[in-house]
Amino acid sequence: MLNIGLLGCGRIGQVHGRSIGQIDGARVAAVADALEAPARTLADKTGATVMGAEELIASADVDAVVIGTPTNTHFDLIHAAASAGKAIFCEKPVDMSADRIRDCIKAVEAAGVPFMTAFNRRFDPNFANVQARIAAGEIGGVEIVTIQSRDPSPPPISYIQSSGGLFRDMMIHDFDMARFLLGEEPVTVYAVGASLVDPEIGQAGDVDTAAVTLTTESGRICQITNSRRASYGYDQRIEVHGEKGMLRAGNVLENTVEIATSTGFRKAPAQHFFLERYEAAYRAEMAHFVEGVVSQKHISPGIVDGLRAQILADAATRSFEQAAAISLIEPNGP
Amino acid sequence: MLNIGLLGCGRIGQVHGRSIGQIDGARVAAVADALEAPARTLADKTGATVMGAEELIASADVDAVVIGTPTNTHFDLIHAAASAGKAIFCEKPVDMSADRIRDCIKAVEAAGVPFMTAFNRRFDPNFANVQARIAAGEIGGVEIVTIQSRDPSPPPISYIQSSGGLFRDMMIHDFDMARFLLGEEPVTVYAVGASLVDPEIGQAGDVDTAAVTLTTESGRICQITNSRRASYGYDQRIEVHGEKGMLRAGNVLENTVEIATSTGFRKAPAQHFFLERYEAAYRAEMAHFVEGVVSQKHISPGIVDGLRAQILADAATRSFEQAAAISLIEPNGP
Amino acid sequence: MLNIGLLGCGRIGQVHGRSIGQIDGARVAAVADALEAPARTLADKTGATVMGAEELIASADVDAVVIGTPTNTHFDLIHAAASAGKAIFCEKPVDMSADRIRDCIKAVEAAGVPFMTAFNRRFDPNFANVQARIAAGEIGGVEIVTIQSRDPSPPPISYIQSSGGLFRDMMIHDFDMARFLLGEEPVTVYAVGASLVDPEIGQAGDVDTAAVTLTTESGRICQITNSRRASYGYDQRIEVHGEKGMLRAGNVLENTVEIATSTGFRKAPAQHFFLERYEAAYRAEMAHFVEGVVSQKHISPGIVDGLRAQILADAATRSFEQAAAISLIEPNGP
Amino acid sequence: MLNIGLLGCGRIGQVHGRSIGQIDGARVAAVADALEAPARTLADKTGATVMGAEELIASADVDAVVIGTPTNTHFDLIHAAASAGKAIFCEKPVDMSADRIRDCIKAVEAAGVPFMTAFNRRFDPNFANVQARIAAGEIGGVEIVTIQSRDPSPPPISYIQSSGGLFRDMMIHDFDMARFLLGEEPVTVYAVGASLVDPEIGQAGDVDTAAVTLTTESGRICQITNSRRASYGYDQRIEVHGEKGMLRAGNVLENTVEIATSTGFRKAPAQHFFLERYEAAYRAEMAHFVEGVVSQKHISPGIVDGLRAQILADAATRSFEQAAAISLIEPNGP
Repeated sequence: MLNIGLLGCGRIGQVHGRSIGQIDGARVAAVADALEAPARTLADKTGATVMGAEELIASADVDAVVIGTPTNTHFDLIHAAASAGKAIFCEKPVDMSADRIRDCIKAVEAAGVPFMTAFNRRFDPNFANVQARIAAGEIGGVEIVTIQSRDPSPPPISYIQSSGGLFRDMMIHDFDMARFLLGEEPVTVYAVGASLVDPEIGQAGDVDTAAVTLTTESGRICQITNSRRASYGYDQRIEVHGEKGMLRAGNVLENTVEIATSTGFRKAPAQHFFLERYEAAYRAEMAHFVEGVVSQKHISPGIVDGLRAQILADAATRSFEQAAAISLIEPNGP
Repeated sequence: MLNIGLLGCGRIGQVHGRSIGQIDGARVAAVADALEAPARTLADKTGATVMGAEELIASADVDAVVIGTPTNTHFDLIHAAASAGKAIFCEKPVDMSADRIRDCIKAVEAAGVPFMTAFNRRFDPNFANVQARIAAGEIGGVEIVTIQSRDPSPPPISYIQSSGGLFRDMMIHDFDMARFLLGEEPVTVYAVGASLVDPEIGQAGDVDTAAVTLTTESGRICQITNSRRASYGYDQRIEVHGEKGMLRAGNVLENTVEIATSTGFRKAPAQHFFLERYEAAYRAEMAHFVEGVVSQKHISPGIVDGLRAQILADAATRSFEQAAAISLIEPNGP
Repeated sequence: MLNIGLLGCGRIGQVHGRSIGQIDGARVAAVADALEAPARTLADKTGATVMGAEELIASADVDAVVIGTPTNTHFDLIHAAASAGKAIFCEKPVDMSADRIRDCIKAVEAAGVPFMTAFNRRFDPNFANVQARIAAGEIGGVEIVTIQSRDPSPPPISYIQSSGGLFRDMMIHDFDMARFLLGEEPVTVYAVGASLVDPEIGQAGDVDTAAVTLTTESGRICQITNSRRASYGYDQRIEVHGEKGMLRAGNVLENTVEIATSTGFRKAPAQHFFLERYEAAYRAEMAHFVEGVVSQKHISPGIVDGLRAQILADAATRSFEQAAAISLIEPNGP
Repeated sequence: MLNIGLLGCGRIGQVHGRSIGQIDGARVAAVADALEAPARTLADKTGATVMGAEELIASADVDAVVIGTPTNTHFDLIHAAASAGKAIFCEKPVDMSADRIRDCIKAVEAAGVPFMTAFNRRFDPNFANVQARIAAGEIGGVEIVTIQSRDPSPPPISYIQSSGGLFRDMMIHDFDMARFLLGEEPVTVYAVGASLVDPEIGQAGDVDTAAVTLTTESGRICQITNSRRASYGYDQRIEVHGEKGMLRAGNVLENTVEIATSTGFRKAPAQHFFLERYEAAYRAEMAHFVEGVVSQKHISPGIVDGLRAQILADAATRSFEQAAAISLIEPNGP
């Protein structure tokens, strides 16, 4: 039985708590949160003990920690958990600064503890199926990857002001997906963007509509589009064109019902947002983590994947600001 | 060059004229119609000579006739054309009476002329593809056939009063399709129906909503539904379930465009009616006839297929009237 | 908190136990099974007490019972639970004999206890959506209902020998769905069938391929097809044609991935069988039961729905045996 | 009756000849080709007179010319036809040099003759429908356009050596489509590409896999991908995301048939190549030209559209060669 301590009992902490409840061989042993109420609620549901964060990390009853606290706390919690020898599951982004992530990597490697960066979309059954079939050679060598990602509506301006910008808070998922599907590291990044959805977003210095082109050393191409708005639900699609054919995963609709009337044939909107769309992915990523820690198997994506996505987000931000393509091939590399 | 004489220059005659114009090795040599205007129009377009029906059938310049006149004239025209040694392409139904069709069969067989009953749907590229793949064994032995057929809106009451009823004027196409797909002759027929679309149709003694179940000797099953109404266009679908899988052909929509909004994902209605939906089928059936006559190849569906569909339509009508299943296995058979 | 006692801890009992675990306001309080092991497993997972069936029904700690035992035990358990004043959730079929179900109805009505017949498909989010939209008038008056239902592969011959036959053990779900969608009671039943999948099924006196036509008093039509075989997964589709249009719910595929190669565009098979396909339906039906009992709201489908489906299954069996349509309009009604 | 002279009787000339044959109010009056045979064949089919190119342009029997000759002959033919006062329908590209196209524009404007640049895809019923609905405001202001365009297989190396490269010979269609859908002129172009399909293409100095990003002054974004290879047929898709929703046009498959087996649900490949896929578009563009000339209505796309697409293709080529984004906003503009 793997005893897991949850650091952070907000929305994502509750998702992880529910996932752990459905996994044989793991249980929520302890929970910690800056606020009393959410920690108490989660404890009541799972039978866990409410602790302070430091106490939880130090507890002999905790084998592994799930870090679901605000991003600016990740750095200290990772260092503390690594020192305590706990296996670590950490929400993305690991940190807003690539250099600080490099520092975390040193701490984790020195401690030799398992570490998983929670890029949940890799565990979506549809996207995972696409990647597995590319890896199995069903479409031969990858040539072009297309990723479409649109949120149903923009977040509050307050969030945007501190998020690091669209390329870092939203497209970072797509950068990880691009790496997952391309099978090679991107070497150039070109980003464009505009504020078409809400002028306040533009005034806050960010974009709400953006597109990026990545290329790899062998010439593979990835195009990504992002929008903070989609009237028809959470738009999450990938398509991969290869030597022998094409693999794609479409949206997940609310149901399979179709109505036909004089205006045509109509299906339901896409599932509303990430909690519905990625419910199965959240369960699968936690099962992968538990299995990896318990059976001492390779866990992926790891902390280096967290760094590489952050480097791409930084480069895209720079490309947009400079209106120029950015090369990632540097003398001393990333 | 096959010289074709068109008997009947109404809507369907014009369709066939247009088809012949696109076939290498055939031309419209002569046209005949009870009315001057449509014959003249078609002649102008095709370079054909306007003649009387008898003159056309007798003309040495005509190798084959296309009969697109009202059903009650088919009998005499078939006999005359057979006597004159012309190849015959005849619109369905061959005749409203199975006995009179049997008489036509004798005349055609005595004359030894090629004869094609114009069940155009067999030549729809989608339905033809389904049948060819059944024949090629892609789904193994056929078990269940489902046919859905709905017109966009009911015909005028005057038409219904003389059409012989839904089972004979509309479902006859589906009976032929059932035989085409089942690969065996039906041995039982059970029909139900009601007047749900327009009470006047009921008052005229017909139904506008109907369903039929057919079974074959080996136990294969076919279910057919018909309606005189479909708000979403001409509804024409077939589905065949076999030992190894299922083959189906869906509707043909007006275009491939899809719109996504807050109400979901919407595609265009189905193509409006038979002239659009079966445009390619009309061309293909005429090409099959021309090729068959010119190269002395087997032409199918033939006149016996016209008879068998009529027998099924008669049996369905009887089943509906008697509210009982009808067996087609009789001492002296059909 | 509604305290539920599970009678039967086999596969379906475990499904219901899992569902209850996800419903706020309900818990598995007690479990009973003829075998020790499955009862113990379920108890460990849920914190329930293992009891004998009689003890469980009599227990003051149990407010409601879920009957998931073999069909031939339902009769006695229903009577006992009704006498004990417990709310009852009973797997379908309520009993193999319509007369014995009538006897159960009397007991349940005399006791005044809530009763739910577990026709889970009514709670499938797709099918429920179709029914709700019919009820809301989206397609106007219903005209034709088409139900396709195919299992991935036949059950063991031993099951078939005691199941009452395809019309009673498999198509009974479709009879309930037909009533759910037609909005009127069927008044005629016509059934055909054959043994095309496995000759042993035919030798056991049953069919594996079948079709039924139902009509209602106002003339609405329902066509149902069943097969014990479908290579492409569990085939579960409904389609309803009405005055203003058509509503349909297609299959649920294993994922949304599509591959395009020289052979075309290929999607995944349908979800394999009922445990995957109806996972959400099982949760929703139990939530409906709990909500109904706790809030004293109307629970549907009730015990009379169990009777009506059984009457249709009996009539279909008779129709098949007699090769004749059966009328359900009798002097003293069903 | 509009008398049309065909300059060039190769594959595309024959397509236009066939289209004219189906348009009321127009006929092929004269044909010219460097080779005798194709001119003779087309003349036999249409009743046209075979002439030399100069004679044809000068002929009083010719009201309009269709230029379907090699690109390097367009310049002289356009000047001659404009001088002769003929309406001009010209295959794309108008010329390989933007400056020479500017020269043609002067000649055409001086002569005041109608001119149509044959960007056939604008007349595809699916793409035309998308554009019309954008114009009608169905999705509000355009935000992101995605265009996917893949040929089934690469052309011969000899073609590639003289075509001007992928951005000019293949993506030029997509540049015109981008302008058609964006509703604004692009102001920046960024292109990437590689030779992944055939190394010989790379050795010939071209790419076979490419992607371009365009932006407009108001911030609208267009992403285009091209490949010289697609195993699943001719891949031609557009998608437009706007304020209120999304419009897209998918591929046109060979038929509507779907097979379901243990490997899933499979549909036909996309129609093989442009002659099948754009058959209706070729008819519609010619009908638009004839209608425009006869009724003196606005004809679009015109010669300036030919120039603007060429400017984008030149800029993309430059962007690829320089590995840098190109701005099209220059002091004296294009």
